Amino acid sequence: MAVSRGVVSDAYAQLAAEGWLLIAPRSGPRVASSPREHKGVRPLYVEAAEAVRYDLRPGRPDLSRFPRADWLRSLGAAVRGAGDAELDYPPIAGTERLRAVLAAYRGRVRGTLATGEDVLVCLGAAQAFITIAVALGPAQVAVEDPGHTGIRELLRVRGLEPVPMRVDEEGIVVHELPYSVRAILVTPAHQFPTGVVMSARRRADLLAWAERRDAIVIEDDYDAEYRYDRAPVGALQGLRPDLVFHIGSVSKTLAPALRLGWLIAPPAWHERLLLAREGLDHGLPALEQHALADFIERGAYDRHIRRSARAYRRRRDALLEALARELPDATVSGAAAGLHVAVHVPGADEGALVAACREHGVVLDGAAQHGAHSEGATLLISFAAVPDAAAGHVAALIATARGR
Amino acid sequence: MAVSRGVVSDAYAQLAAEGWLLIAPRSGPRVASSPREHKGVRPLYVEAAEAVRYDLRPGRPDLSRFPRADWLRSLGAAVRGAGDAELDYPPIAGTERLRAVLAAYRGRVRGTLATGEDVLVCLGAAQAFITIAVALGPAQVAVEDPGHTGIRELLRVRGLEPVPMRVDEEGIVVHELPYSVRAILVTPAHQFPTGVVMSARRRADLLAWAERRDAIVIEDDYDAEYRYDRAPVGALQGLRPDLVFHIGSVSKTLAPALRLGWLIAPPAWHERLLLAREGLDHGLPALEQHALADFIERGAYDRHIRRSARAYRRRRDALLEALARELPDATVSGAAAGLHVAVHVPGADEGALVAACREHGVVLDGAAQHGAHSEGATLLISFAAVPDAAAGHVAALIATARGR
Repeated sequence: MAVSRGVVSDAYAQLAAEGWLLIAPRSGPRVASSPREHKGVRPLYVEAAEAVRYDLRPGRPDLSRFPRADWLRSLGAAVRGAGDAELDYPPIAGTERLRAVLAAYRGRVRGTLATGEDVLVCLGAAQAFITIAVALGPAQVAVEDPGHTGIRELLRVRGLEPVPMRVDEEGIVVHELPYSVRAILVTPAHQFPTGVVMSARRRADLLAWAERRDAIVIEDDYDAEYRYDRAPVGALQGLRPDLVFHIGSVSKTLAPALRLGWLIAPPAWHERLLLAREGLDHGLPALEQHALADFIERGAYDRHIRRSARAYRRRRDALLEALARELPDATVSGAAAGLHVAVHVPGADEGALVAACREHGVVLDGAAQHGAHSEGATLLISFAAVPDAAAGHVAALIATARGR
Repeated sequence: MAVSRGVVSDAYAQLAAEGWLLIAPRSGPRVASSPREHKGVRPLYVEAAEAVRYDLRPGRPDLSRFPRADWLRSLGAAVRGAGDAELDYPPIAGTERLRAVLAAYRGRVRGTLATGEDVLVCLGAAQAFITIAVALGPAQVAVEDPGHTGIRELLRVRGLEPVPMRVDEEGIVVHELPYSVRAILVTPAHQFPTGVVMSARRRADLLAWAERRDAIVIEDDYDAEYRYDRAPVGALQGLRPDLVFHIGSVSKTLAPALRLGWLIAPPAWHERLLLAREGLDHGLPALEQHALADFIERGAYDRHIRRSARAYRRRRDALLEALARELPDATVSGAAAGLHVAVHVPGADEGALVAACREHGVVLDGAAQHGAHSEGATLLISFAAVPDAAAGHVAALIATARGR
């Protein structure tokens, strides 16, 4: 297994060079936004505690931000507005309306090129991966290393063989891809967990490689909605709709419990994908699909994401400032995007530090849990659920866990 | 393939003997309820029409009865009442609350024996079948013949081999089951399409056979909510919870579009079933599950089914009365239950009659489409969507199609 030693600090240097980086190495994180005082709960003495005070594992939005009233308004519109025929068995691919709305929406915000025909509504991103796996059949799939271990496991369960590929400061290392892989799964907008954004050159290389080898590219656009410093890079799918499968969901924008996701697929694959889906279920709840279509159409989704992005940006800034104070030798890598940061703590043992954080009530992942090994410890910290006011407390708990 | 010739008329005789039958042979259908005049739209002359006037194919409730306001109330309770943690990734087996509510509810109305632990929430009954098929692996499954062709196809797609078994007036013929089958799929409450209710003796035989051969029984309780003459026979699952998989959904009571179904499974199978489900999706929409739990808990589901059953009973009566007038030689078989009747028209060619009905705007299935072959024609007519006032029109259109 190719292990990407040092990817975090390499990526850091590259990102700094490209102007994405907010943190200067060896001098502690420095955020680009104007520094501001924040009223962190900053205890003088932090006690060890068994209870979970902060669950900072990556992958979830701040669930308390779920726009209950606004979502219920869309559910109401769906329940009242659906024709009787729409209460019947829904189309397996999704309701025509939501497919069209998603195609237009993703095109507008992510630059995808698709019509409703190309969209398959899925139970979150997970079912999109499963559907592709079934349609692809047993095959080798290149995955990023480090990368999302849960998705690898999901592919393995469905009979695919994940082949871990090194990630450098430009993204997955294309020239090392073995000819045996039939698909390449990437997170171009915000690599998980490093936060690297795939470079334009690497994108071109990847698509050229896939075309030459008759392979497909699976683009996991998992948290592309959140970019804090500049407009996000457009979706890979928009460059080659005939090669790229584009996957997204509302799990990071609204709530995972809604189980609403989508797969935009090359036309040549539609039939195979539909057959695959028939083996998984016979259609998804239609009223919820109507609700999402309504939510997007009347601008509520855009509004909610805009507000959330503002809140998350503040939280990210607050956390990085607090970490700069509490762990001045730590460095942060990755683009100013998404819902988590990778924080490198030099000279620390990652496993021990993660365990110590847990003892202090802070649950987070070490990068090694996602295949990223580095000198010292790299913590993956989700800032989504840390209110500005709690950033100081979180940073203090981590510093206490480190024993300084 | 064992074809159950004459099953309809055999079943008819048996049902008459058991007092279930509403229609006397050769003298036209006679409904048990007090005859009443009805204001049927009864044209003097029925023109052939290409348009669909009545879709009477079995399998759907009257979708215009969907209790929109009441369901929305439950959705509102779900959206407002769910804790933040319930907006996270839901348990794959279903929310704890709905599983417990379904176990209690099915126990109360169908006599199942289960706790929430035994319940797997599924995307309608279809996904329950798929989940069992995956857990079972490639195997022979005995299916009723005549029976639901869609479910056979679903099992075949998942790698199972359906073995059609004869159905007589007591249900599936147990003593003809080959030892090679690992599972027996039955519709004991209201056999599809004949309407036969499995006799107590046959139930006992089936369970004894399954235990002896180490096979499982899959009980498709697809429309057991509707019994018009007496209390429905209890679920098979309640007799042997260790052998019987019990499947149901809200598709015939609320709407198929909700995609809410359940599988009650023997404890020894829980782990295999969960593994199977992980290969299909990673959990179902949680808010909708909360809504159904609320809907059942506050009695709205019972109330809705009671009201629907009254309406359907009236519609069944009206249709049978109209058919007795228009097609006096036709006979009706099956218990006074469910959402469709099997109407036997002597001396008619089934395919030609189904086609002629279609030309007159009446879409219905012939029994042969579900594997039931008989002398003359047997039409499967759903009365669910025929308002009392339209029964005369429907019967007149069918009579016109027959050319008498």
